[in-house]
Amino acid sequence: MRLSLAEPKYLKESISILSDLVNEGRFKITKDAIELVAMDPANVAMVIFKLLSSSFVEYDVKEDMEIAVNLSNMKQILRRTKSNDTLTLELDSKNKLLMELRGHTTRTFSLPLIDIEGKEQKIPDLTFSSTVETGADILNDAIEDVDVVGESVSFIADKSTFTISSEGDLSNANIVIKAGDETQIKCESDDKIKSKYSIEYLKKMIGGSKLSEKGDVLIQFGKDYPLKLTYTTLNKVQLSFILAPRVEND
Amino acid sequence: MRLSLAEPKYLKESISILSDLVNEGRFKITKDAIELVAMDPANVAMVIFKLLSSSFVEYDVKEDMEIAVNLSNMKQILRRTKSNDTLTLELDSKNKLLMELRGHTTRTFSLPLIDIEGKEQKIPDLTFSSTVETGADILNDAIEDVDVVGESVSFIADKSTFTISSEGDLSNANIVIKAGDETQIKCESDDKIKSKYSIEYLKKMIGGSKLSEKGDVLIQFGKDYPLKLTYTTLNKVQLSFILAPRVEND
Amino acid sequence: MRLSLAEPKYLKESISILSDLVNEGRFKITKDAIELVAMDPANVAMVIFKLLSSSFVEYDVKEDMEIAVNLSNMKQILRRTKSNDTLTLELDSKNKLLMELRGHTTRTFSLPLIDIEGKEQKIPDLTFSSTVETGADILNDAIEDVDVVGESVSFIADKSTFTISSEGDLSNANIVIKAGDETQIKCESDDKIKSKYSIEYLKKMIGGSKLSEKGDVLIQFGKDYPLKLTYTTLNKVQLSFILAPRVEND
Repeated sequence: MRLSLAEPKYLKESISILSDLVNEGRFKITKDAIELVAMDPANVAMVIFKLLSSSFVEYDVKEDMEIAVNLSNMKQILRRTKSNDTLTLELDSKNKLLMELRGHTTRTFSLPLIDIEGKEQKIPDLTFSSTVETGADILNDAIEDVDVVGESVSFIADKSTFTISSEGDLSNANIVIKAGDETQIKCESDDKIKSKYSIEYLKKMIGGSKLSEKGDVLIQFGKDYPLKLTYTTLNKVQLSFILAPRVEND
Repeated sequence: MRLSLAEPKYLKESISILSDLVNEGRFKITKDAIELVAMDPANVAMVIFKLLSSSFVEYDVKEDMEIAVNLSNMKQILRRTKSNDTLTLELDSKNKLLMELRGHTTRTFSLPLIDIEGKEQKIPDLTFSSTVETGADILNDAIEDVDVVGESVSFIADKSTFTISSEGDLSNANIVIKAGDETQIKCESDDKIKSKYSIEYLKKMIGGSKLSEKGDVLIQFGKDYPLKLTYTTLNKVQLSFILAPRVEND
Repeated sequence: MRLSLAEPKYLKESISILSDLVNEGRFKITKDAIELVAMDPANVAMVIFKLLSSSFVEYDVKEDMEIAVNLSNMKQILRRTKSNDTLTLELDSKNKLLMELRGHTTRTFSLPLIDIEGKEQKIPDLTFSSTVETGADILNDAIEDVDVVGESVSFIADKSTFTISSEGDLSNANIVIKAGDETQIKCESDDKIKSKYSIEYLKKMIGGSKLSEKGDVLIQFGKDYPLKLTYTTLNKVQLSFILAPRVEND
């Protein structure tokens, strides 16, 4: 295996966000892509990461393989890449992942492979009754707005409006996003569709906006149903998150 | 009541500074202005804030009224305003203050009104024997300079010179500001006028320089007498602080 | 004694770095220069600082003298200098060092002189078998790279290559710098020359890069032998560090 990235930022940004949610990650390396699917330790959020072979300048994979590493260690090494470095990933003879950063100088880091118990995570088969496509900045701002007042946030959609709303102990916040040039809303119900999610998790997930080529985000959810956020750079990288709803007795 | 600000920064910056000195604030809303007068919990400093009706694009006040809020909660909401947002303040039916931020999207926050015990603060009637008008940056730098060496600072004026001075346990600092183009000094005594103040309080107050249109500050004090600092943007906002002197037995 | 600097940054940056390694410093003031030689409290590192008389706009020293101050207090005062301030050093009658910052206003700080016990530090007579001259940025990056994986770092040189390498408990890092336009390597042995040093100390020392006029650093070391780093601005300032090797039983 020998994989070279001329734009290490796709891997760097992704792992930086993933490592905030997941400690250890098992990468599946196929002829098409590097993929990682993992649950956070509390079993509330799933991350789905795919870096396509077309984003590499060299992509030599003889057979499908899996390698697992500590994501926080990997993040620290990736932080050391500069924008004009070429990053090459290889396996050495001692069961380590070699990460070579070639720029002004050549810097090589080696990272031990680890064993992850348990089976491969399966991506759940979800059907969303509501889909919103909007600017990633709009979602980022809204999550930071509701973070001022509460711990959980409601996503509410009807055919013309997407509302993000939070009720704190004292203050409330309400963000109204209308369908229009910048925001497309699809809603399969005539009633409002509403579900509640953790702001703490969402704050980590919206970091994915850095991976969106056009600065947009795909938001999919349903009534008291999981939320899926997807950030994409076409033909290069896709980062999705699935977040369980908060169902409260009220 | 319905009040709209096209430049929310005047309210945002003021509340940010006020909330460092005072926890809760009672605003008096009249046909002319929104005003707040409050003492800090230690009874050492008074803040006097006035936002004139002419700084609003919409100012609909039927009758004089008073509303009180937690300033630190208000600050957190105001932090979310962007420079091109229009901020509208209204009261809802549930005894809450509605703060609407209208920009790219419309975001509404509601903040509970609170009860503040005690009478309205009266602004004391002070007569200052010394008045200095100088660049707010000059005062800011001087306070940061003396902060390196001590806890209290002396303001000393004669007819030609304004001196800011601090003696620490080890080091001393002395800043000499001469009357001239940038600094006007009025002093009603032939002797030096000197008084001592807390650096900790002054560090909070000099944040008012953000509200000075021309970048200047009015400094008024007397011999072992309170200090008054005033920052003004003409026809828009005025923020003043009164600080008790430190009288030491030496 | 009266010494004036039109570019206080040389003293400001130097003392800021020195005070991270040494608490108290004894300056030797001669007709040619201000010099300071000091060991860190753990006796692992020596700092050698020289600010030449030619970097001063006024340099009036009647006779050689020594003054000692707390470097961290001195750093705090120097932090208050602005780039267009002229800094003048004098002794007052009360055994204090007067530091006058003259810019827009005149600010005077006084700093007590202290007694330092013990004899003057002597600079050890060292002979280095390996000398590398390279970009200060290259060394800075390499030290930050190895800091990701370990606590100590090996400097390894042969006639064509300078390698910086660290083995952590888990990960390793290896930076290869080849002789060329930007890097000159002299090595007096046909074998590789290798020695180990503390990364924690090196991280403090590489701050010296701010004092290098051309952005370069002189790196001198030997087999299991002290390291010397030197940063220079010609005719103005020179800052060197000597660091003891880490000799481990392996």
